[in-house]
Amino acid sequence: MKRTINLGLIGFGTVGEGVVKLLKKNASVIERKSGTRVRIARICDKNPRRAGALNKYGLSRDVFTTKINEVINDDNIDIVIELIGGCEPARKYMLEAIRKGRHIVTANKALLAEHWSEIFSEADKHKVLVYIEASVCSGIPIIQSLNEGLSANKIKSILGILNGTTNYILTKMSKERMDFASALMEAKKYGFAETDASLDVNGMDAVNKLVILGSVTFGAHIKLSDVYCEGIENIMQEDIEYAYNEFGYVLKLLAILKNNGKAIDVRVHPALVPGGHLLSSVDNEYNAVYIEGDAVGEMMFFGKGAGEMPAASAVVSDIIYLSKNINNDIAGRAPYIICNSEKKLKVMNIKDIRAKYYIRISSVDRPGVLSRVSGVLGEHNVSIASVYQVAQGKPRGDVPIIMVTHIAREGDIKKALSKIDRLSMVGKKSILIRIEEPNE
Amino acid sequence: MKRTINLGLIGFGTVGEGVVKLLKKNASVIERKSGTRVRIARICDKNPRRAGALNKYGLSRDVFTTKINEVINDDNIDIVIELIGGCEPARKYMLEAIRKGRHIVTANKALLAEHWSEIFSEADKHKVLVYIEASVCSGIPIIQSLNEGLSANKIKSILGILNGTTNYILTKMSKERMDFASALMEAKKYGFAETDASLDVNGMDAVNKLVILGSVTFGAHIKLSDVYCEGIENIMQEDIEYAYNEFGYVLKLLAILKNNGKAIDVRVHPALVPGGHLLSSVDNEYNAVYIEGDAVGEMMFFGKGAGEMPAASAVVSDIIYLSKNINNDIAGRAPYIICNSEKKLKVMNIKDIRAKYYIRISSVDRPGVLSRVSGVLGEHNVSIASVYQVAQGKPRGDVPIIMVTHIAREGDIKKALSKIDRLSMVGKKSILIRIEEPNE
Repeated sequence: MKRTINLGLIGFGTVGEGVVKLLKKNASVIERKSGTRVRIARICDKNPRRAGALNKYGLSRDVFTTKINEVINDDNIDIVIELIGGCEPARKYMLEAIRKGRHIVTANKALLAEHWSEIFSEADKHKVLVYIEASVCSGIPIIQSLNEGLSANKIKSILGILNGTTNYILTKMSKERMDFASALMEAKKYGFAETDASLDVNGMDAVNKLVILGSVTFGAHIKLSDVYCEGIENIMQEDIEYAYNEFGYVLKLLAILKNNGKAIDVRVHPALVPGGHLLSSVDNEYNAVYIEGDAVGEMMFFGKGAGEMPAASAVVSDIIYLSKNINNDIAGRAPYIICNSEKKLKVMNIKDIRAKYYIRISSVDRPGVLSRVSGVLGEHNVSIASVYQVAQGKPRGDVPIIMVTHIAREGDIKKALSKIDRLSMVGKKSILIRIEEPNE
Repeated sequence: MKRTINLGLIGFGTVGEGVVKLLKKNASVIERKSGTRVRIARICDKNPRRAGALNKYGLSRDVFTTKINEVINDDNIDIVIELIGGCEPARKYMLEAIRKGRHIVTANKALLAEHWSEIFSEADKHKVLVYIEASVCSGIPIIQSLNEGLSANKIKSILGILNGTTNYILTKMSKERMDFASALMEAKKYGFAETDASLDVNGMDAVNKLVILGSVTFGAHIKLSDVYCEGIENIMQEDIEYAYNEFGYVLKLLAILKNNGKAIDVRVHPALVPGGHLLSSVDNEYNAVYIEGDAVGEMMFFGKGAGEMPAASAVVSDIIYLSKNINNDIAGRAPYIICNSEKKLKVMNIKDIRAKYYIRISSVDRPGVLSRVSGVLGEHNVSIASVYQVAQGKPRGDVPIIMVTHIAREGDIKKALSKIDRLSMVGKKSILIRIEEPNE
């Protein structure tokens, strides 16, 4: 009862080649698990020179085309694998393929984060499945787990280290005392950052991924504009060091989603986590997702979040699952990702979040400054848990006062800091970093 | 197009009650994710007094029965949830339910580990699905991930902390310097160990779970008798301390599966892992599974491995998935767990494994002993990487020599140790603990 499943691959870059490599390398495993044969029928890339890689994998040159319609309009193709990335023309191609009744496997986080509702309603309408495991944390099966394995839970929070580039940079800054610019250069040198790493560094890559995780969790699209975002560009090495040496915190770029039952809180920003917490041990290019569900309690997924073969692992696993269902004639007869486009999610304003905070104030070295500063904080309902005053400033420099607050409202602490920054005894603008303590 | 899915629950103990509680608490989430309504039609327990818990959950007493046939033979029941545990009569009930065409959700690791092939061939024959997520690591979706999300990979190794009771005991022994007996008592006191914890402590519970993980991975039954097993009953607090203080290792009860492409290596025993490795940070009652796949690389799952609600999380997530497919009339039309009963797995003998080892030798305190001991080891192709001689013995006591070897063959090192133990200058029997360094 075995039929052959035909794949049409769009985008023959690094991940595309990884997929072809893995399909060949593990062909027998894939046949055993899918119960069918999987065949690359077509590969499309606008760059004709990429056809050169085909014979490495024993594929005939006839498989290659530069014309997208030869994939989308080919009725032999069961699954379209979209790996070109970016919103356009990927969106157009994907919607056309869906309308032609092709199932989709994609790694395209930017497209999904922006056009979630459109894609999944169109897929629903045409009874095709869109599989997206590779779009977040590569090979870590986090989408499937949130969508199915943990589906009995109300998800209370997700804390993710979702971007390998920034995690690599922060690890270098904290373990080797590099400044941001040198750590970024090193990340580029060793292939952990692209030439243009701006979407990693400014947090937008993590925002895209958080939107996907959240939208899977809530069964409705979380809009990009609903996610508060800060990158790591302005993180100073000295804050990483003070926070660790004085208070035991480790700095990570966290993607945070919390649900208190009334509103959701979604944001991406640098955050301090306790040194004893598992998330603090996730170093270098690794990713992790820490989840709290009302039944399952706390759990974590850890692994590589990028790279040719980890991404191929997710894409090919999706292909196996789809192929098995196509072969048994049931693909598309039950929905996979459910998206209710009517559902409105109430999102919390960043001013209303409550957290502990790390603050660094650059005081001109003279008595009385701590008393003034803590007075202003107190007037705004911010109370200090712990303070560290650096004994000696640089010659004629400012002397930093480092503190950690008790839980406070963000709107209040920001007002207090803007007042503090205007005090004559305070030098440069104060630094504020949110603290995230998952066990509290 | 919504129909109601009827559940028949067998076994109304802790997990059974957790399932009923979760079905009620998260009813709206469950309805949204399954696209259908899920209803408890029948609960069977041989102890009639357990019916007393029903009204807590708004269930009528008519739902309860002590007669198993009222569940198995009721043609309204779509899914039988087997939570009685143990091999018999659970096996008999499950096979009967399968033959009647009921889909199954079970948490029964002992039954699955022993009768894997029989259960899955019977399920195949009758086109029903057997879902087993709760049988290993409770709510951590490790079965689904190995079976689907990571299915494109050849799995090179699995290292699991699969038993919460022993992990709790070992954490107490290492962090609070307790001896085994006191740590076990404390585990019982705080509910992390049953009154009879023998199957936890002797490693058999972890063996059952490893058999399940391995059988899912290879698509064929790994037999219980193929798994080498040692428990933690004989672990001395002093070895935990020496291994950590002198060499930086942390002791865990590890379930290990390795595949070199020729034979598989499956075993459960105490093992030392490097203090910097993520597995070493998995403390108390938590579980973790560290996996290396040829495409995905290294990854880890972490979470609670036991307890009423974590187990209910897995059971109810399986119910949601099955209900969705039953409602769309596709349940059982594609296989879930594939079991090839013909396939023979070649299993490595423990004598042929190669590892680094921690050794403690009780020498009578006199010069020359180290030279004799290292001589014997050398004759058996075991070379020493690092040695630590305790300066002073107890008055008239033995003086321990602690060492870590380079990689050696287990058969060789055991022969050497039995020779060393017969030397006149050596006191008590030597201690041997395997070292597992996942990154090497």
